[in-house]
Amino acid sequence: MRTVLLTGFEPFDQDTINPSWEAVRLLDGILLSDDVRIVARQLPCAFAEAPARLAGFLDEYKPEMVIAVGLASGRADVSVERVAINLNDARIPDNLGLQPIDTPVVAQGPAAYFSTLPIKAMVRAIQAAGIGASVSHTAGTFVCNQVFYSLQHALAGSGVRSGFIHIPALAQQALETGVPSMALETMVQGLRIALITALNTEHDVLETGGQVS
Amino acid sequence: MRTVLLTGFEPFDQDTINPSWEAVRLLDGILLSDDVRIVARQLPCAFAEAPARLAGFLDEYKPEMVIAVGLASGRADVSVERVAINLNDARIPDNLGLQPIDTPVVAQGPAAYFSTLPIKAMVRAIQAAGIGASVSHTAGTFVCNQVFYSLQHALAGSGVRSGFIHIPALAQQALETGVPSMALETMVQGLRIALITALNTEHDVLETGGQVS
Amino acid sequence: MRTVLLTGFEPFDQDTINPSWEAVRLLDGILLSDDVRIVARQLPCAFAEAPARLAGFLDEYKPEMVIAVGLASGRADVSVERVAINLNDARIPDNLGLQPIDTPVVAQGPAAYFSTLPIKAMVRAIQAAGIGASVSHTAGTFVCNQVFYSLQHALAGSGVRSGFIHIPALAQQALETGVPSMALETMVQGLRIALITALNTEHDVLETGGQVS
Amino acid sequence: MRTVLLTGFEPFDQDTINPSWEAVRLLDGILLSDDVRIVARQLPCAFAEAPARLAGFLDEYKPEMVIAVGLASGRADVSVERVAINLNDARIPDNLGLQPIDTPVVAQGPAAYFSTLPIKAMVRAIQAAGIGASVSHTAGTFVCNQVFYSLQHALAGSGVRSGFIHIPALAQQALETGVPSMALETMVQGLRIALITALNTEHDVLETGGQVS
Repeated sequence: MRTVLLTGFEPFDQDTINPSWEAVRLLDGILLSDDVRIVARQLPCAFAEAPARLAGFLDEYKPEMVIAVGLASGRADVSVERVAINLNDARIPDNLGLQPIDTPVVAQGPAAYFSTLPIKAMVRAIQAAGIGASVSHTAGTFVCNQVFYSLQHALAGSGVRSGFIHIPALAQQALETGVPSMALETMVQGLRIALITALNTEHDVLETGGQVS
Repeated sequence: MRTVLLTGFEPFDQDTINPSWEAVRLLDGILLSDDVRIVARQLPCAFAEAPARLAGFLDEYKPEMVIAVGLASGRADVSVERVAINLNDARIPDNLGLQPIDTPVVAQGPAAYFSTLPIKAMVRAIQAAGIGASVSHTAGTFVCNQVFYSLQHALAGSGVRSGFIHIPALAQQALETGVPSMALETMVQGLRIALITALNTEHDVLETGGQVS
Repeated sequence: MRTVLLTGFEPFDQDTINPSWEAVRLLDGILLSDDVRIVARQLPCAFAEAPARLAGFLDEYKPEMVIAVGLASGRADVSVERVAINLNDARIPDNLGLQPIDTPVVAQGPAAYFSTLPIKAMVRAIQAAGIGASVSHTAGTFVCNQVFYSLQHALAGSGVRSGFIHIPALAQQALETGVPSMALETMVQGLRIALITALNTEHDVLETGGQVS
Repeated sequence: MRTVLLTGFEPFDQDTINPSWEAVRLLDGILLSDDVRIVARQLPCAFAEAPARLAGFLDEYKPEMVIAVGLASGRADVSVERVAINLNDARIPDNLGLQPIDTPVVAQGPAAYFSTLPIKAMVRAIQAAGIGASVSHTAGTFVCNQVFYSLQHALAGSGVRSGFIHIPALAQQALETGVPSMALETMVQGLRIALITALNTEHDVLETGGQVS
């Protein structure tokens, strides 16, 4: 049995739930084909702990593909991240009270890593199912980006493909702030399509997903 | 058998589909209870024809409640409109090439009509189902507002409750523009909840849905 | 000497300054022509007091034109309001702790009043000076809209033209929230152009300023 | 006489002016101190020509600091870019009709370069002048990012500091689209402050400018 690892985050800031975990846990144990099973695990929203926890999961499950998922409050669609940068710059403290400013994720690491997933094929497939999706060129500078960078650093050169997907807030999280939201079922469906597409796509499609700025 | 009338629009501008019609036609014929049936009909996106078509439907079906639905490209949630204004001001020509600028919907009509639906109860119920929803204080100045105003004008004093709901673009419409989108299933579910809540709510809840600006 | 009355608001919510007052007070006493002087006055951000304070200013200065100005945090340009609605619905308490929900501004008043200013000529003139401007179809449901409605109600039929303009946040207010901002000098220039244009324009231009939704 | 090089772009897409060039050309020849002069030059909006043109300017003027400026239509403030990525992915053709998709800016180049300017001190100083400013973590994947990456690549290890700033649209460009805009004077003042701050700041301030996503 081959394994695909999917991670979501625990709640952070003032939230009591995190849609990234709510969505990925519904996919835990699902078979994507006869011999591919999804393992969904939770990561802490803490700079000091998230990379080690992730490393533990990589070690334990030896996945053949990894997609980390996080919340991007304010975005309106499933955004498949293209690039992780070697920078922590926290606008708010994490769940352990740490707020690193302008520190590297990995000292002496390269400035950035690109996703090794077929991101455009994924975006196109999610859209084809009637779900909003786009390529994003920034995963921020908080724990999401830290996990994304750590993931790409850990798997660089291994042949195991990996990347990061941001999802919008849930409707209940948007009540106060008025940010765009997405139904949980839609998120789950979008992530499922992303996984299947990534598994079945050897080479990404050559189609624009870029942005003028 | 009592009837609830639901209207959606034909496509306009450069679109080939209109999510408002795609969503409401899926609800056509549905029974909301033993004796309440939804009738869904299409309105033209044309200033010269939409009000008469609407009047015809009101005449034909003698509905006990009416909700007109339209597309609000750029919005991210199901927005339940509060007020229709007596103004046509078209930024683009309608489907018959008409582009009225600063003309009244109804000459000598009042400046505005409020929705007679329990809009906050509706918004709260849609949100409770995990779907983004909000009260909106402008339905624009195009055919959507014209139909909303015409509807409220036609039913003023009749005791038949009526109003307007705007829905976001579909994912396929957002490909070029990057506007927020909503899955069709989510729209349909949101509209169904809106209808049931409106039918079962005598007096609206007193809860803020306002905006500072 | 003829008088044009300009009002701005005191700070509200958690702000210590209100750009609407900062901008209009810089125009206080300015001569727009040989015989037209601007009088700028401050209004409280309080439902129970703002309309009476405004009525006092109208009584005292007998202005030949009135423009009330308020902050619309989140908007990016000078937005000239088209319509005031007969509704208070406060998302947050005002400066006296009052938070009316779904009450009329004026009991038995009409549902809405339109601005009696040449709003499109004003928008066009502000834009021609290189400053972002647009027509807006909602002034919200907080004290801004209450003042706008009260103003139009007080002057209805008097021949004195009046209306409302919303301005964006200042840069210092946008630090935390990331909302769009405008430089104070730009606001002041925009308001000055709006005043002069309104004074010199008998009939508004027929040009679209509408919105599809 | 020491030289600071400032670049702006020629118009692109359907525009007839480009605010980046309109702004920087007003700073051409300005003395920032007794011995520091600004040289402002225009770059073509063309993948095949921009890097060579830039290299020519670096060669000709031997600047001690370089800031490239570009238009980010849709953004509302002066955004100081943090990172350039090794990727061209054009959503639209450039001015020569070229539309590279998923090609590197520099074959075998590193995935990304960080700005070597004191970006947070610059943002703080611009804000202190009442002008909206923020740190941005994506310069897009069009010619702006290509120039930014080429600039950082060319100067890597040289000790010459360099970076990129995006500015909003002008009001006249926002008429059709409704994107946020900024007055030209405000842009020029913001860029001038950015230059002076960068020149006078040895080490950047440690203050958060990050984003959760």
